[in-house]
Amino acid sequence: MIGLDRLSLNQATVRHLGLREAAALCARHDIPAIGLWRDRVAETGLAEAVSAVRAAGLHVSSLCRGGFFTRADPDGRRAARADNRAAIAEAAELGADTLVLVCGGLMPGQRDLGLARRMVADAIGELVPEAQRLGVRLGIEALHPMFCADRCVISSLGEAVDLALRFPADAVGVVVDTYHVWWDARLAGEIARAGGRIVSYQVCDWVLPLPADTLLGRGHLGDGVIDFGPVTAAVAAAGYDGYVEVEIFNASVWDAPADETAATVRERFAGVFG
Amino acid sequence: MIGLDRLSLNQATVRHLGLREAAALCARHDIPAIGLWRDRVAETGLAEAVSAVRAAGLHVSSLCRGGFFTRADPDGRRAARADNRAAIAEAAELGADTLVLVCGGLMPGQRDLGLARRMVADAIGELVPEAQRLGVRLGIEALHPMFCADRCVISSLGEAVDLALRFPADAVGVVVDTYHVWWDARLAGEIARAGGRIVSYQVCDWVLPLPADTLLGRGHLGDGVIDFGPVTAAVAAAGYDGYVEVEIFNASVWDAPADETAATVRERFAGVFG
Repeated sequence: MIGLDRLSLNQATVRHLGLREAAALCARHDIPAIGLWRDRVAETGLAEAVSAVRAAGLHVSSLCRGGFFTRADPDGRRAARADNRAAIAEAAELGADTLVLVCGGLMPGQRDLGLARRMVADAIGELVPEAQRLGVRLGIEALHPMFCADRCVISSLGEAVDLALRFPADAVGVVVDTYHVWWDARLAGEIARAGGRIVSYQVCDWVLPLPADTLLGRGHLGDGVIDFGPVTAAVAAAGYDGYVEVEIFNASVWDAPADETAATVRERFAGVFG
Repeated sequence: MIGLDRLSLNQATVRHLGLREAAALCARHDIPAIGLWRDRVAETGLAEAVSAVRAAGLHVSSLCRGGFFTRADPDGRRAARADNRAAIAEAAELGADTLVLVCGGLMPGQRDLGLARRMVADAIGELVPEAQRLGVRLGIEALHPMFCADRCVISSLGEAVDLALRFPADAVGVVVDTYHVWWDARLAGEIARAGGRIVSYQVCDWVLPLPADTLLGRGHLGDGVIDFGPVTAAVAAAGYDGYVEVEIFNASVWDAPADETAATVRERFAGVFG
């Protein structure tokens, strides 16, 4: 059982709100934590974002996102490194539990998955000292295999765990997101193997049919096919006791009034985890 | 290197052709084998289908498909069992190298993946004696995880291998289909573990962007992102020396003249595997 004191709302769930509005929404609905996105932080200004979440009494459970490491050209790689260092600094300022990494897909015109994966590993290794210096944990997120080509070559939790284990535990962990990993027959075992490396648990449902933009095939807890019980039990047994972040990319959720969405998020969370 | 003497054309690639037309197309383009679909066999009549492929001098590399085992109601399960026994008989008559199994998704209204997977295992077990009696090898096909909910709960090659290994090798094997498994970081190891259990190697490319109907996001070899070399080397190293079947679900390929499609299939096959 997970109480509402561990609920976090990822602001992408109320995508049309700015950071201040999303923070106020959480405060209004007694949601104690928020997952932030860097574009919204930038729009607000970092210092203002920090004061807005503090004023609302919120904890920042994650900052989305760093990553996109698979760049072949030296300029692109330098830019990615600089951007990720900036993201680490922002995560530190915000006191975020983790900086979520979406690692990047195949390089344009390339088919070498192994090369892309080695680039990801190298890039994360380069960031470790900065993450340690600022006390930020990087969270490698396995994305659903349907995004392997164009978004993230880390396609299963097991692969994310393999990668994280190559680095110090205080600097690199993994994100468990039900939407991306629910299908995996080896999921429970990989969550156990992740153990203390789990730095974020994100939840939303897998709804059918998949929309034309498969990024948006997510739904409120209970609207789809995911059995949250076994995944949550495995995450708890692995020792994770942090926030559980509801992150829903869905056009009709985005069209709904934000207060209605927040109320639904709370109600479904209590029903599924209570 | 794989010569054109190992090319098979799955008839779904030229979906608008009947079985006789597809067989004639293969003969015309010096393609020595064909993968058949049961609806087209039924439409032609089994005896007529057998004589059509023999007359065209073709080997039948696979029959698609059995499966869809995840039925909760006794009537549905009985119907699935009868249908799969009929499919085994058809595969035997056609001399097909394998009967491809698409195992089925979650049961409607259910979220229990483990239960669905146990039902698949039980159903395959029930078919083994009939498969052995008629000398047909069942080919468990792992489908891409994006089809886990609604089409096939066997979502990775490793899972298919785990399942196949529970049954006699003369009755149950696995299908390696690049479209479904290319993203898997553990693919080479799982192919090696499959060894002599590989009963079919199907190929097509993963094209971007995914179309609205994700079933159709397949392309001619070379039109997408899949690196066929490492997968093919692993399949060969595992001992597979059967036909390599080109199976493309793609609306624009279906709209093209069949002779053009067959010529492209040959040309790309020679380029990628020659």
